[in-house]
Amino acid sequence: MIPRYSRPEMVAIWSPETKFRIWFEIEAHATTALADLGVVPREAAAVVWEKGSKANFDVERIDAIEREVKHDVIAFLTHLSEIVGPEARFVHQGMTSSDVLDTCFNVQLVRATDILLKDVDALLAALKRRAFEHKTTPTIGRSHGIHAEPVTFGLKLAQAYAEFARCRERLVAARKEVATCAISGAVGTFANIDPRVEAYVAEKMGLSVEPVSTQVIPRDRHAMYFATLGVIASSIERLAVEIRHLQRSEVYEAEEFFSEGQKGSSAMPHKRNPVLTENLTGLARMVRAYALPAMENVALWHERDISHSSVERMIGPDATVTLDFALVRLTGVIDKLLVYPENMQKNLDRLGGLVHSQRVLLALTQKGVSREDAYRLVQRNAMPVWRGEGDFLTLLKADAEVTKHLSDAELEEKFDLGYHLKHVDTIFRRVFGET
Amino acid sequence: MIPRYSRPEMVAIWSPETKFRIWFEIEAHATTALADLGVVPREAAAVVWEKGSKANFDVERIDAIEREVKHDVIAFLTHLSEIVGPEARFVHQGMTSSDVLDTCFNVQLVRATDILLKDVDALLAALKRRAFEHKTTPTIGRSHGIHAEPVTFGLKLAQAYAEFARCRERLVAARKEVATCAISGAVGTFANIDPRVEAYVAEKMGLSVEPVSTQVIPRDRHAMYFATLGVIASSIERLAVEIRHLQRSEVYEAEEFFSEGQKGSSAMPHKRNPVLTENLTGLARMVRAYALPAMENVALWHERDISHSSVERMIGPDATVTLDFALVRLTGVIDKLLVYPENMQKNLDRLGGLVHSQRVLLALTQKGVSREDAYRLVQRNAMPVWRGEGDFLTLLKADAEVTKHLSDAELEEKFDLGYHLKHVDTIFRRVFGET
Amino acid sequence: MIPRYSRPEMVAIWSPETKFRIWFEIEAHATTALADLGVVPREAAAVVWEKGSKANFDVERIDAIEREVKHDVIAFLTHLSEIVGPEARFVHQGMTSSDVLDTCFNVQLVRATDILLKDVDALLAALKRRAFEHKTTPTIGRSHGIHAEPVTFGLKLAQAYAEFARCRERLVAARKEVATCAISGAVGTFANIDPRVEAYVAEKMGLSVEPVSTQVIPRDRHAMYFATLGVIASSIERLAVEIRHLQRSEVYEAEEFFSEGQKGSSAMPHKRNPVLTENLTGLARMVRAYALPAMENVALWHERDISHSSVERMIGPDATVTLDFALVRLTGVIDKLLVYPENMQKNLDRLGGLVHSQRVLLALTQKGVSREDAYRLVQRNAMPVWRGEGDFLTLLKADAEVTKHLSDAELEEKFDLGYHLKHVDTIFRRVFGET
Amino acid sequence: MIPRYSRPEMVAIWSPETKFRIWFEIEAHATTALADLGVVPREAAAVVWEKGSKANFDVERIDAIEREVKHDVIAFLTHLSEIVGPEARFVHQGMTSSDVLDTCFNVQLVRATDILLKDVDALLAALKRRAFEHKTTPTIGRSHGIHAEPVTFGLKLAQAYAEFARCRERLVAARKEVATCAISGAVGTFANIDPRVEAYVAEKMGLSVEPVSTQVIPRDRHAMYFATLGVIASSIERLAVEIRHLQRSEVYEAEEFFSEGQKGSSAMPHKRNPVLTENLTGLARMVRAYALPAMENVALWHERDISHSSVERMIGPDATVTLDFALVRLTGVIDKLLVYPENMQKNLDRLGGLVHSQRVLLALTQKGVSREDAYRLVQRNAMPVWRGEGDFLTLLKADAEVTKHLSDAELEEKFDLGYHLKHVDTIFRRVFGET
Repeated sequence: MIPRYSRPEMVAIWSPETKFRIWFEIEAHATTALADLGVVPREAAAVVWEKGSKANFDVERIDAIEREVKHDVIAFLTHLSEIVGPEARFVHQGMTSSDVLDTCFNVQLVRATDILLKDVDALLAALKRRAFEHKTTPTIGRSHGIHAEPVTFGLKLAQAYAEFARCRERLVAARKEVATCAISGAVGTFANIDPRVEAYVAEKMGLSVEPVSTQVIPRDRHAMYFATLGVIASSIERLAVEIRHLQRSEVYEAEEFFSEGQKGSSAMPHKRNPVLTENLTGLARMVRAYALPAMENVALWHERDISHSSVERMIGPDATVTLDFALVRLTGVIDKLLVYPENMQKNLDRLGGLVHSQRVLLALTQKGVSREDAYRLVQRNAMPVWRGEGDFLTLLKADAEVTKHLSDAELEEKFDLGYHLKHVDTIFRRVFGET
Repeated sequence: MIPRYSRPEMVAIWSPETKFRIWFEIEAHATTALADLGVVPREAAAVVWEKGSKANFDVERIDAIEREVKHDVIAFLTHLSEIVGPEARFVHQGMTSSDVLDTCFNVQLVRATDILLKDVDALLAALKRRAFEHKTTPTIGRSHGIHAEPVTFGLKLAQAYAEFARCRERLVAARKEVATCAISGAVGTFANIDPRVEAYVAEKMGLSVEPVSTQVIPRDRHAMYFATLGVIASSIERLAVEIRHLQRSEVYEAEEFFSEGQKGSSAMPHKRNPVLTENLTGLARMVRAYALPAMENVALWHERDISHSSVERMIGPDATVTLDFALVRLTGVIDKLLVYPENMQKNLDRLGGLVHSQRVLLALTQKGVSREDAYRLVQRNAMPVWRGEGDFLTLLKADAEVTKHLSDAELEEKFDLGYHLKHVDTIFRRVFGET
Repeated sequence: MIPRYSRPEMVAIWSPETKFRIWFEIEAHATTALADLGVVPREAAAVVWEKGSKANFDVERIDAIEREVKHDVIAFLTHLSEIVGPEARFVHQGMTSSDVLDTCFNVQLVRATDILLKDVDALLAALKRRAFEHKTTPTIGRSHGIHAEPVTFGLKLAQAYAEFARCRERLVAARKEVATCAISGAVGTFANIDPRVEAYVAEKMGLSVEPVSTQVIPRDRHAMYFATLGVIASSIERLAVEIRHLQRSEVYEAEEFFSEGQKGSSAMPHKRNPVLTENLTGLARMVRAYALPAMENVALWHERDISHSSVERMIGPDATVTLDFALVRLTGVIDKLLVYPENMQKNLDRLGGLVHSQRVLLALTQKGVSREDAYRLVQRNAMPVWRGEGDFLTLLKADAEVTKHLSDAELEEKFDLGYHLKHVDTIFRRVFGET
Repeated sequence: MIPRYSRPEMVAIWSPETKFRIWFEIEAHATTALADLGVVPREAAAVVWEKGSKANFDVERIDAIEREVKHDVIAFLTHLSEIVGPEARFVHQGMTSSDVLDTCFNVQLVRATDILLKDVDALLAALKRRAFEHKTTPTIGRSHGIHAEPVTFGLKLAQAYAEFARCRERLVAARKEVATCAISGAVGTFANIDPRVEAYVAEKMGLSVEPVSTQVIPRDRHAMYFATLGVIASSIERLAVEIRHLQRSEVYEAEEFFSEGQKGSSAMPHKRNPVLTENLTGLARMVRAYALPAMENVALWHERDISHSSVERMIGPDATVTLDFALVRLTGVIDKLLVYPENMQKNLDRLGGLVHSQRVLLALTQKGVSREDAYRLVQRNAMPVWRGEGDFLTLLKADAEVTKHLSDAELEEKFDLGYHLKHVDTIFRRVFGET
């Protein structure tokens, strides 16, 4: 996470101020629950809430205390007692640091996910709008980077929409994975704290109760969370690579918006480069990479060790901030993408009709030619076209073995573009539920 | 995937024989659907089914054809036409290779997942049985590898149970991700094949329809699938590492079953090593590693390229076979695990009562001592115990500042084991729904 | 590693037969050394060599023994004693299994590397030949997939040559990393075996002595080895991606050799796809992925655990076999690559001279125009060309602010191709040491 | 990279101020070289140096310009021209942004590596000092976490020393990989800039010339660099894990220094946890993870794309800062490590002499017992010891089949510790060149 690839709303979730505020809320809610249970005085809980709610926690002061005690939660509690006074001794009763740390981390991840969900929604909206705009804009479909058969530009975007709709579902599942709360004490046995405190805090913080924690909330949850972000990043990469391809000089079917005053190259004033989608390609590599340390974090020793902590202090912000930035950037790219239907048509026509080879093949087999023979007949008329030695339809018409089975009119009918687009509505209905 | 770490049932899913059989079924079902639509003669479909069902596809013959045409599906279709005769020309009408390949791959993954689900169920059963067996077997809970407070061995297994129950849910979700069928033609437009064929084949193969494919089924599905396997592998690693720790010479609280005739070391006849769980640790690294190429596979170029294919030919079998083997091995380890409750008790007693330090801390704060002072008081009596300079309770009783607040009887009461285990039932109810 | 992507020579290194032969050699050399030191009878060593050299080790028999004793080296030694007779008891004296296993693994890696080095040499030769062939074949250089300025096709290959020359050096370094031998006993102390045995075996097996082993040869060596293979795979990917781009329908400057009888698509007979380089892209993902478990293997517990073993049984063959296959395949691609200089020229001309924008910019600044003004002048004449609204040179000549500084002749001179290629010799001399 | 795990010296290398200063130096040196070649006025170069050397580049101003032109190098050059005045138009003549960016990145990596080398040197010094201090401190060697045979604590550290000495060599090689300079213009052809400029700048910046660049310096170099950091991180993890094991409550042979005032747990005042080495374990996961996006960066499209840039903006600082911090932290841990030789001795004695099983085995075979029989004899006396049913030596003496071959005195002699340590000097000489 670096400022260049960050948005303030997401960064704020990971600030020390936010963290200490969440810690306070967890501690204060727990104190309330303890008061309800008669473990600590009701007045103490009231004082904690009153003084703590108004306080600005002093990050530098907490850091200074931590440098001495070498323990972040103790440092915070010490600072809290400076603010709250003697009633502070009723705070954190029977709890362990991880109760605060893990519950807070999950609150942060849940909030981050809520932003990511909004991001995906905005991306879906942009994809849908542009998909319908270009629902019937013909363009060449390519496999292996080689012209295959016609599709529409709207179909390309419909596929991206379907992919990100899946990503949205995964994100919802990932959010659920990490939306748990543990207030279960030193090794998760509730020895010194009643399970009802956990239930109370969970509800107040918008989480569910972790069924069994062992001082820590189990990290398979977070592994799944960060793996999901890695998959979403990979889908971002896919769409980014598509646009990079479309903007290539020789293809030039679409282009990132190029603003007034923008410069593409310090040396070559003619350049207009797909820098945003290239950037997204790189960011995807990063988000993907964070999945691995998250998976290595699962195998903590016994009830817990602290090796996961340094990883999470880094990938917590790094993965969510970077993915948030990437989703928003991608949405902007799609929203403002310059689309060149004439160039798409030009490319469609480029291969001299070769893209209709399958229809000719099928027509021949329908006439009783074996699949193998039909393939050979079509291929031998296609290869010269690649070598620039003629037009596919003309060649076919000149091939006696072909015309034995297919008349000129029949052949011509196979070169109709509309034929390929007749099911666009079917697909749109599947993806968007409307056409 | 190597024989050493493979089970035949899972390996069979990935055999050429199975693959060609699935290919045949997809092609034959599609031919039936085409016949229903009147596109191909009904008799042709009948002949295809009749001859194909009886045939043993000749893997070597198909390989030989592929060496010439350099295309695996064409090689298969050519061989099929050798078996079926002229009616074979009605097979694969309007379809593209990926229709067969991708649908087959998903069928294989679905079948593999069904085995993995059975594996997880067996593991859950073993964990549950042993968890209840040791529900109240006291053992020391450890954080950072350092004694913390008492838990029970059953609680450790309950946590593993909860973790693998989550893994099971993830596996169900992953299965759904990949349980789709695409029969949509060269670039997914259904230009040459009616969408009803896809619906028919999907239903017959136990899959749902891929809403929008682009020759290929989108690979974000598979990325999610293999990432999920990576997370499950990480949970395997966690439990394996736990057992490796418990078997350490100094800890020796549990031990992998050591069979009659087994030899632990070629040089040292006294050795009994946790080789199975160490092996599982390594296997987990492998399954995890496969998640990354699966994620890199997402960004295929345009409607598709074939770069994902070599990856999937390898990780398809490698990840599922290895995970299947690992789950079954882990189940065996848990099932036959030797548990030494006396050693657990011995270790519990090892630290001279230090594990009760929190209770003393809390008792002091309850008596009005500030948290900071109480911490200092307890810590100063704990540190000598680490240095072997006495017993914790004795030291506390000799500390005037402590006894000012807590009587000998009150102190002694803080050293009660039962105190820590009073919520075991609560947790078991959460995890197993019973106690 | 699957047969499809394997070459027999490399596969043979990893066969059980080869492994047992190497185990035998290590054990027999050690026995000789022990005999030289007077620890075992000289006759025993002679018998071991004599009977063992002639024997075919029976893999199935060894496997059967292993199923009982659950230890591979003990199984082998038991089988060896069946072959050698009573003298076998002098074999493995004071050694531990890892002495055999680790030294054998390193022998295998060294042999594998020797094949890989030959592969890289062949690739370098192909690259050099094609680079010189196309040393002066002009083609457009592209940044961001957008036309930049002219280069030659030979320069592209020279860059690849330089990259693989670096890979070769890295491979030599990686070979050295793993070319060590340990015969140091149960925990590496030489308690039961004289260090001179290690020195003797090392020399005989073509290895150097591991300075300090701890039963195992330290795995940082192997992490470095497999990371190096991952980097080489990434360079393969780079060249593969270049060719995939060049073969795109719209670019079509080069093409993988398409053999007689080959079929590009089951559905579309016109297709000629860059399937080999796409395949290489996928294989690169796999080889790269193996680097990670190798790195995780480093942190073995204490003197050793066996978690690395399952990883290495898989990635040892997987990484070397796959990389070998990929290098040979890439060499074939380069060797037979179809290059289309006319298409390169056509693409060079496509942007109406825009690729000369930098020279006009520089010429303006040389005439005293500020960099910012010059950039603006050039850019405003370039942008209409992108929109298809004219030819760059014509537009420049019609811009009074431009012609104030540059005459028509001066402008025309800036559109000279030769200008860009004047240092090709310089670069070739740097890369190949010749021109 | 987050402040918590950062050291200022390394962070400074990656500050915008440092970056712009390096950019300036590259541009100014290039201008000087251009002046030497007569391309630009000598006075211009002088003015650039004079004004630029004194200037503080205004990061916010440059950022503001970049927001408009969307190009960082152009933004810098614009700011530079504000400082330098009209002579600034002679700066960057014939260069492209990557000439500046890539050369600067390599300068930063080289400087970062120089710090890392110092870090490794300090770590080696600490390891050597402690290794000699404990050269003959006996401790149990463990394989699989199970007691094997005696070693010394100095040997453990000697192994770590040898490992980090290898890491140092790798770091030197990695530094050489990235210590290159490219000033070759828009597509690396030197069309607009003489190769002598590159040679001049390279020499001034302490780099060597990149033989063939394609606008960018090839990224296989950086992949190798970051992979090397990943391997070093893995070695850090290995040593960290060793210490974590040694500090376990049951083992307790060594311990991280625990400072006055430090608190191990917010809940349990008795805790002293190996938090530093656990932290190092997590940091290692991160540094390792960065190797993968670096490898994915290699396959840039054609002469270059910009996808690598976002990755490098993140992993450049992240990997070097984190590794620097980890190395320094590890050095501190080693330096101040509390070592408990008495506990080591206690653990050595724990298994009732089982650790001498190999010597008994060998003695039996020396007496003519077959390896298999000897193994069985020893194992049957070892297994009861595991079950707490007696002392190994006593059991052996009571086994008639054993005593048939070995007298009591002979058996006793096999239980001598000194026997295991006789080659410590040999190993120290190999590792340190001295004893």
